[in-house]
Order: sequence, then C-alpha cells, then structure tokens
Amino acid sequence: MSSILKQRVRYAPYLQKLRKAEDCLEFFKHGQYLGWSGFTGVGAPKVVPDAIASHVEKNNLQGKLGFNLFVGASAGPEESRWATNDMILRRSPHQVGKPIAQAINTGRTQFFDKHLSMFPQDLTYGFYTRDKANDLLDYTIIEATAITEDGAIVPGPAVGGSPEMISVSDKVIIEVNTATPSFEGLHDIDMPVNPPFRQPYPYTSADHKCGVTAIPVDPSKVVAIVESQQKDKVPPNTPSDEVSQNIARHLIEFFEHEVKQGRLPENLHPLQSGIGNIANAVVEGLSSSNFKNLSVWTEVLQDSFLDFFESGSLDYATATSIRLTEAGFDRFYANWDEFSKKLCLRSQVVSNSPEIIRRLGCIAMNTPVEVDIYAHANSTNVMGSRMLNGLGGSADFLRNAKLSIMHTPSARPSKTDKTGVSCIVPFASHVDQTEHDLDVVVTDQGLADLRGLSPKERAREIISKTAHPDFKDQLQDYLDRATFYAEKAKTLHEPHILQDAFKMHLNLQKNGTMKLNSWDEKF
Amino acid sequence: MSSILKQRVRYAPYLQKLRKAEDCLEFFKHGQYLGWSGFTGVGAPKVVPDAIASHVEKNNLQGKLGFNLFVGASAGPEESRWATNDMILRRSPHQVGKPIAQAINTGRTQFFDKHLSMFPQDLTYGFYTRDKANDLLDYTIIEATAITEDGAIVPGPAVGGSPEMISVSDKVIIEVNTATPSFEGLHDIDMPVNPPFRQPYPYTSADHKCGVTAIPVDPSKVVAIVESQQKDKVPPNTPSDEVSQNIARHLIEFFEHEVKQGRLPENLHPLQSGIGNIANAVVEGLSSSNFKNLSVWTEVLQDSFLDFFESGSLDYATATSIRLTEAGFDRFYANWDEFSKKLCLRSQVVSNSPEIIRRLGCIAMNTPVEVDIYAHANSTNVMGSRMLNGLGGSADFLRNAKLSIMHTPSARPSKTDKTGVSCIVPFASHVDQTEHDLDVVVTDQGLADLRGLSPKERAREIISKTAHPDFKDQLQDYLDRATFYAEKAKTLHEPHILQDAFKMHLNLQKNGTMKLNSWDEKF
Repeated sequence: MSSILKQRVRYAPYLQKLRKAEDCLEFFKHGQYLGWSGFTGVGAPKVVPDAIASHVEKNNLQGKLGFNLFVGASAGPEESRWATNDMILRRSPHQVGKPIAQAINTGRTQFFDKHLSMFPQDLTYGFYTRDKANDLLDYTIIEATAITEDGAIVPGPAVGGSPEMISVSDKVIIEVNTATPSFEGLHDIDMPVNPPFRQPYPYTSADHKCGVTAIPVDPSKVVAIVESQQKDKVPPNTPSDEVSQNIARHLIEFFEHEVKQGRLPENLHPLQSGIGNIANAVVEGLSSSNFKNLSVWTEVLQDSFLDFFESGSLDYATATSIRLTEAGFDRFYANWDEFSKKLCLRSQVVSNSPEIIRRLGCIAMNTPVEVDIYAHANSTNVMGSRMLNGLGGSADFLRNAKLSIMHTPSARPSKTDKTGVSCIVPFASHVDQTEHDLDVVVTDQGLADLRGLSPKERAREIISKTAHPDFKDQLQDYLDRATFYAEKAKTLHEPHILQDAFKMHLNLQKNGTMKLNSWDEKF
Repeated sequence: MSSILKQRVRYAPYLQKLRKAEDCLEFFKHGQYLGWSGFTGVGAPKVVPDAIASHVEKNNLQGKLGFNLFVGASAGPEESRWATNDMILRRSPHQVGKPIAQAINTGRTQFFDKHLSMFPQDLTYGFYTRDKANDLLDYTIIEATAITEDGAIVPGPAVGGSPEMISVSDKVIIEVNTATPSFEGLHDIDMPVNPPFRQPYPYTSADHKCGVTAIPVDPSKVVAIVESQQKDKVPPNTPSDEVSQNIARHLIEFFEHEVKQGRLPENLHPLQSGIGNIANAVVEGLSSSNFKNLSVWTEVLQDSFLDFFESGSLDYATATSIRLTEAGFDRFYANWDEFSKKLCLRSQVVSNSPEIIRRLGCIAMNTPVEVDIYAHANSTNVMGSRMLNGLGGSADFLRNAKLSIMHTPSARPSKTDKTGVSCIVPFASHVDQTEHDLDVVVTDQGLADLRGLSPKERAREIISKTAHPDFKDQLQDYLDRATFYAEKAKTLHEPHILQDAFKMHLNLQKNGTMKLNSWDEKF
C-alpha cells in the first residue's frame, strides 16, 4: 500500500478491501450490467478494465466475456480495448473512438444514444435494466482521487453519471488514482431524487454551488478498492484554422450586434460550447474580444479554456468534465489555486439540465454533421445510418438555450472532391435537432439568423448566407422546384420534393460528390 | 354600460376607457404586430377582431389590412375569419381551422410553429419583433372575465401567453366577457422574469400554486375596454371508437405492468394528454380503471375531464386552457364549486415548462401524423410539406416526461384504400420528435416498449407490435433489405436505404396507397 494511497483514503475500513486489479476478475461474468465513471475520455476507471481485457486476450474469451456498459459519456482507451475484444454487448449513451464506433457499425455492439441529461435519470428509473430480476447495475467501477472520512467518493476530472450509477448499483469498485492530485473541492454534487419527491435545482448562476463535494456511497456496497497510477490520455486538440476562425468571427460580430440591440447583456449569458476546432476557434475569438466577465455553463472544458481563463475575459466556468491533454493537466495542476477558484464540476444531469439551461438563458453552440435548408440538423448519423459518436448533450443545450447556434464548415472534402460534401442539404438524412430548436446557423460563409422566420424564409436565409458557393445554385434550384411543385399541391408551408430530397446524398454515394449533374437524374 | 360590466370591472378608471368594438378600428394599421389571448380555441378576443374583419369585408381591404398575429396557441372562429380575409401576414406558434391552414399552405400567411413553452419567452426576448424600432407588440387584445381593484386582468378559460404578451406590448385592449361567469380564483399566474434574474419555478405537484390570480398590467397601457357577450365556440369532440379504445386498453395494461414492476407509483405520475379521440379514449379508460388519486399536468382539458373528475379517480388537474364545448361549459358552471377546487389554469410557459414536466415525472401522451421504424415522429407536416396545426406542446412534454408515449391508429384510410396510409413508415417525412425522445409507441395493434433498445431492436419491436397487418411484411422487408445493405457498407447502427426511404409516401401520392408493388419500383 503506497503512502499516498493511505493518505487519500481517509475511511479506514476501505483499506481492508484493497485488491490488485487482477484480483477483481472473479467479480465479472458474461452479460452483467456495468457502470463506469468518466465523461469525454477522462475520469474513467483504467486498471480494472485493463485487467479484464488482458484476461480476455490471454484466454481468447472474445465474445464470451461481454458486458452491458454504461458510461456518463465516453471513456478512455480502455473502452477501445474492450470494443476491439468484443467485450461490449450493449452501450449507451455516447462513445468516442474508432474501435467502439466500428463495433456499433458492424452490429457487434447494440448502442443507443440518449440525451446526456436524461440517461442517468432513466437509469435510476430502471428503464435500462428492465430485463433483470433485481433491476440494478451489477457493478459500478468508479475512479476516485480521494475518499472522505465517511467513505464518500471524490471524483477526478469528471462527475458524469457517477452519482446515479452508484445509487442504483448492487456493488461498487473504487479505483483510487494516485498519479493525479486529489480533486477535492472542485466538485459540486447532486444526488438523484426521483419524482414525486424531486425539488427544484437551486442554481441561478454558473458559480452557484450546493456545497456537497463528494459522492456518498453505502460502504457495504464497496467490494474492492484498487490503486491506479494511470493518467488520463486525451488526444491532442485540433487547432483552429481559417474556416473555423471565419465562423468564430461571424459569431462574435453577431454577439456584438445582439448586445447593441439590447437582446444580450454586455457580458453575454453563460456559454456552452462543444468539442473540436470550431469550438476552439470560438473560445480563442472570445478570449481576444472586448467581452469581459463572461461565464461558462457547459458539459466539457478543453485546453482552450485555460487560455480563456488567463485572458481575463472569463470569470467562471462549470461543466461535468474537464478534458485536458497531458500538457493541459500539467498546466492546470501547476496553477491549481488560481483555476480551481473559477471552476466547478457537477453531475451531467445538472450540467445538462433543461431546467437550468433555460433559467440561465445559456448560449449554446454545437457542430452538426449537416443542417438542412429548413434548419433540421443531423448530429449523429452519417448518410442517415453510420453512427459517429452519439447525440451527446447537443439537444439538451440546443432545445433549451436562449440562443441555439449550430456552426459548421459550409462544405467538407469527399475522397475525390475538395468541396464534395455540402453541410447544407435539402433534407437532413437523420434528424436530431428540429427546425423548432435552432435560432442561428453559421458557416465560414456567413450567419443565418432564423428567429421568427417561416420555413421558406429560413431556407432562403440559410442558402444565401451559409451555403458554400459550389452548392448555392443547386440548393436554390431545389427550393425553387419544390416551391413550384408545392404551389400546385397547396403544400407551401415547407416545400419538399420527396423523390429528390436525398439526391445529393445518393450522388455522393454513387459519384463521390454532392454536386449533381441534374436534379432530374434518377438513383 | 351593463350593470354586470360595472360589477366585473373593479378598477374605475378603466370604465372611462369604455368603447364599442367598432370604435377601436382607428388603432389598427397594416403590418402591426398583435398579441391575442386565447389557447386552443377558447379565451381569445372576439368582438374587436370581428369588428376589424367586418371593416375589411365592407371596404374590400383584403390583403391591405394585415397583421403579424401571435396567439398562445389557436384562437376561435374570429381567427378563421381573419384568415379568409387575408388579414394574417405572419402567424405563430400554432393554429387550428381550415381557413388558416389554407392560408399557410397556399403561401399567403408566413407561419412558424414553435414549442409552446418557448414561444412567449422568445417573444419577450424581442426575437420575433427584431425588425421593429421599438421591439414591442403594437397591441395585445386580451379577453378578461373580471378586472381587479388594481387593474389586473382575470382571464377566462385560457391563460396561454397573455402574461408575456402584456409585458412586451405597447398598448393593451381588454375585452371583458360578461356572457360567461367570472373565472376569478381559477388561475395561478407567473409573470416572465428573464435571465440572468430568473428563479426556479417552485411547483412540485400539480396542485401547488403561487397564489397570484390575475395578470398585472400598467393601467396607462390600457387604451380601451370593450364589453363582449360572445361565448366560446368549440366544435364537438370526436367520440372514442374501437381503434382508440384498443389503444387505451394497451396503454392501461402497460401502466398496470409498470406499477407492478415498481417503476411507477400506484397513482401514477401527473398525466399529460392531447386533444382528439385517442386522448378521449385514454381518459375514459382511466376513469373506469382501478387507478385512484390521479393527477393531471397538461396543457389543455377537454369535456372528457369532467367525467374523469366525476369518476372519483382524478384528484387534481392543471393546464393552461380548459377547452369545453358549450354543453361542457354549462356543466362546468353548474358545478363550479366542485370543479374549481380541483383545477388550476397557468401560463403556457409554466404548464409546458421542461423544468416542471421533468421534475414531476409526467406521463406524456400525444398523437403524431406518423412514426418511423426507428421512433422518429412527425407531428406537423403531412408528406413533409403540408402544415396541419403545428407542433403545439408535444415536444415540450415528450422530451421531458418520465414516460414519453405516442399513440396512433396503425393505419388510416386514403381516398381509395381503407388502410391505405400506414402510420408506421420507414422514414418520417418530417421529424418533430426524435428517436431520443420516445419511450413507447402504441397503436390499436399493440404497444412497443422502446426503452433501452438500439435502433435495430426498436425497429423490430415497432414493426412486430404496432404496424397494421397490411404493412407488417412490407416494413420488415425494408428493414431486412436495409440491414443487408448496411452489413456490406458497415453502417449497421440505423440501417436505411435512402433511395427507398420515402417510397411508401411517393406511392401514396402516385397510386393512392402506401402499399407497394415492390421496393424496386422507381419514382
């Protein structure tokens, strides 16, 4: 037992349950329901999942030792290893990484994506364990960075769905990570209370806290404590580029305009931004803008937020996960006192809560696969079928924010055409966000303000302001033809020609580009 | 001045502003932005809109005196008259009636449908008046059944969006309806408070009230008081039939099962149900079931709720509108003391609030146009283009409820085929509710429980349990072919064949039925 472990585990009875990861193998049987801590690749258990994977690899148990696996959102490389070894029978509510996406898209893993605010709640309702006699998760494996005197768990860089998982878990295994500092004091924890007993969440600002800093657990449920010295491994961030910087520029001009019109306060409302290079460009743009005293209410913080804090523009940020690269974490730990005063991690049920997002009037920004001319967006399924990562919290924020913004490049390259894929299409091949949810669509070409517009007006605004020049005429042609047709049919609310609606997608499949020879071509 | 009017208007200065409806004509100019009270055909202003319509008809001003019109949801026959006379330039967020639907579908009225919980809020943000210099509604015309001593407005059978409209209106015209009793005491009013100052809604049960019973208004804004003696006119309700009774039976069996499994309490959670014969059948079914001490948190109450109350099963109901037929209102007034103890009307921002719906764990039930095999639902647009009534509160409830249920006949008649239109389709021709929002789909054929299922599992469940026998093989064929194709393409998450996805719709257009000769046919 390392001295640092003894220091971190302040509830002595747990130390009698200390095991090596390999000694936990006996707990696990094919078909069990497991919860893992973790969110967006950080804070997940590492050494126990790795020990099980090694066991499977060594004994050729691929497909014979598999689990129903629930994680707040995505876990780290250990999840990829499980996917590669056919150890994931069922998975929800989100995932990231080639091996797990491959397992889903080849039908080896049954996956469903669910609003991240809702998944943990529905888990506590027993909705996902309804085929089980005891209605519970068999095990939750949770990473801790400390244990309090009463056995409660201090998470690391993610809270995620851990409070709910622990509350409905038959048994709990705690991985105490001694390779990272203790995160004690950084969290603000709400435990689930189900209807009819649920009370209002009290939070009325990003920095409002309830003061509970660890996840309470019934110690009799804890069957093992395992020491882990594996750090989180997050791939490097995609830097911003000209396209994403143009998007950010349009957005910041829009915010300035809204402040001028009196529709936003000078320090804006709490911001939500996703992951990726557009999100990074927006954060960079805000850091160097004239906006001051900003706040952030979001689900995940990336490295760019460290600069954002240091720019002096950002007063406070809250999320359910702080997903930093190794260099980012080093920087975070080195300035712990400074950053930790301005930061709080909550459960994903709270960070993504419709109740709080609407109350605070958040400004939500997310990147879709594609948006259609009437402002339905596809966040998940390429060509309507192939799962990327899952819905995440996009719909939690976009449905409830005061300003719901989708940002995307106007076009992406296909294999044979540098602008072969238009991100503006006639009909989204899968719909996760509806026309009733989006206020603004912005691309490198410009910004479409859709508030208060009818579908036809929206279409004209989206095509003229945001479509790539290579697709502008083609999309306008679709709209004109559909309008002509709808005039005769008296269906002018949202004109479509259903036999043409997916032709750009079909042409991409057949000819490698969304650029059509003619709308009359048959597929 | 009638003595009953004097008695109803307890704030004397208003009586000096008394006008006839015809004398209000001078206020109205082409292109103005107007708010009307009203929700689902009741509680809307009547005599002033009628006077303006008469003026237009008499002077052939069709298309020359038009307005941007906002109503909580739908208004009564006066709205239809306006639509017929081309007096509605722009309309949101919901509408009912042939003339207005026709105006929208022939492109004479620009319409956008918006979540009913969100519309009034976005109006107060100035999102829908951003082209106007003063950012306000020009007039709100509101029906009152009484005026309090401080000039506050006691609405009639609907609260709707009136509190928000009045708060952002330049001027207010009050129609005091003396043909109906005063509804004083039946309402519980929340006035809008915008971010960053918004506080939690305190409500934790259907009967929880804040105690404000009238809508406060700055008396200097009130430019006219008009007496109205027009009653609300609601068309008769569609009675339940064998199909809707079968749907109700499946649902009640499901509720009984959930109670047995411990996933619902014995008195269920607060119920939301829509309008129409399926909703009526469900209420009838619950009234004669063994469930007791039920409560209702919904947006609109219909005649069937009077029976529901009298059955003794229903303890309390709250909504934003009580939409009764004339006979229903007579019955309601005759038993006012009994009914009014068990009933409360709130603003639609509160009745449809995601915050409260999720907190209470509501059970939401709505009828779609169609549902697809992966559980996306179309609530609004027939064949993807033709507007029916609008989104209403369906998405407010279905996104946030504990149990989100869509009920529909498995098939509907086309002009030439008694079961020509399948309500289960491969790909919804318009998506308002996503696969991430629905827990249960139920038809006269059976009930599909989708909780925790992957898209392919959902498709099998929906097809086998809910599709009409005339379409079962055809839909299964689509799924099998799409799965075969997706196996090769490695897109097995949610298999689709985009060139076939709308073929059932296209066959209906071309051949009058969704029954295909072959999936290989080209359109």
